[in-house]
Amino acid sequence: MSPRRPDRRSEEAAKAVVQAAMELCREVGYRKLSIEGIAARAGVGKNTIYRWWPSKAAVLLDGLLTTWRTDATFPDTGDFVADIKTQMAAASRILGDPDVFPHYRALIGEAQHDPEIHRALWDSFIGHLAGAAADRIRIAQREGQVRADADPDLVTELLYGAAYYRRLLTPRTADTDHINAIVDLAFTGLAPPAE
Amino acid sequence: MSPRRPDRRSEEAAKAVVQAAMELCREVGYRKLSIEGIAARAGVGKNTIYRWWPSKAAVLLDGLLTTWRTDATFPDTGDFVADIKTQMAAASRILGDPDVFPHYRALIGEAQHDPEIHRALWDSFIGHLAGAAADRIRIAQREGQVRADADPDLVTELLYGAAYYRRLLTPRTADTDHINAIVDLAFTGLAPPAE
Repeated sequence: MSPRRPDRRSEEAAKAVVQAAMELCREVGYRKLSIEGIAARAGVGKNTIYRWWPSKAAVLLDGLLTTWRTDATFPDTGDFVADIKTQMAAASRILGDPDVFPHYRALIGEAQHDPEIHRALWDSFIGHLAGAAADRIRIAQREGQVRADADPDLVTELLYGAAYYRRLLTPRTADTDHINAIVDLAFTGLAPPAE
Repeated sequence: MSPRRPDRRSEEAAKAVVQAAMELCREVGYRKLSIEGIAARAGVGKNTIYRWWPSKAAVLLDGLLTTWRTDATFPDTGDFVADIKTQMAAASRILGDPDVFPHYRALIGEAQHDPEIHRALWDSFIGHLAGAAADRIRIAQREGQVRADADPDLVTELLYGAAYYRRLLTPRTADTDHINAIVDLAFTGLAPPAE
């Protein structure tokens, strides 16, 4: 999704566009965000934007990646349960940031109508994080902290899925307690303890 | 979200509107769906639609509820693992229906921008199903098939969250094998088996 920008002046214009899109999205909401509005705020022409990005969603995705500054390196203190709780709580805190979540959920919403955004969101962001999580899970499996027969991708779906479900679909509060409860329940499992 | 309709003629007009919206959404996609288009296809005036529904998303939600005919009664054969797999696989099959999923994911997308649709989707649909799942989980807990200290709502988030995560966010295939794998992993848990 990243645009090609040949020189420093273009670099600055691109930065202004992304920043304008993030600010405007916060101010007027995703629905009322327009390429015209972004262009006016950034002081560039509409065509400049269209030369680099196919849609307002694509601009926002670049903005989100910049803001989030995702460091997909997982903590590895040797204690997987503690590390996954740390990472998920950090991700959840960033997600809860009013400068991030409205933009991010708008992009997830957009991805449900637009296969290109869906792919870009996965490739540049969600799948990137999920891949880092799966790598950390493989280490935990080698160290005997996660059962060896579990599919690492499925483990990420189970853990992150519960967090996304609550945030995107329910009216419930998403907080660190919820993250900890997800990880604890996923670890003990639903089966009753053996007699 | 359901409109008040005083007489049989209105009842038929409302039915025509909902059917037109579902057909058009399938044909042109959610983005190009318009109240004008729905009105033309249904043979009613735009104002008739706006009298009953606040938005195209609200019309679609009624259509989805009609199509889905959600019977939120969970199977109860006495085997919770088998029953939850049956229910989740059935829900997943309906979700995978090309006449349902594009509409449903469009509504989920819309819910990310529109708090009213978010609430309506939860109250009339997702929360309704989640509540039925939680009730079945409580029975399983009383029967000793699910650990008694697990929060039933959290259990539903863990199980359904993984299914939604895959369908909404990843490019991976969602099928019955995936449903079975989610339930099995959630039951055994991530912790390695005791020595």
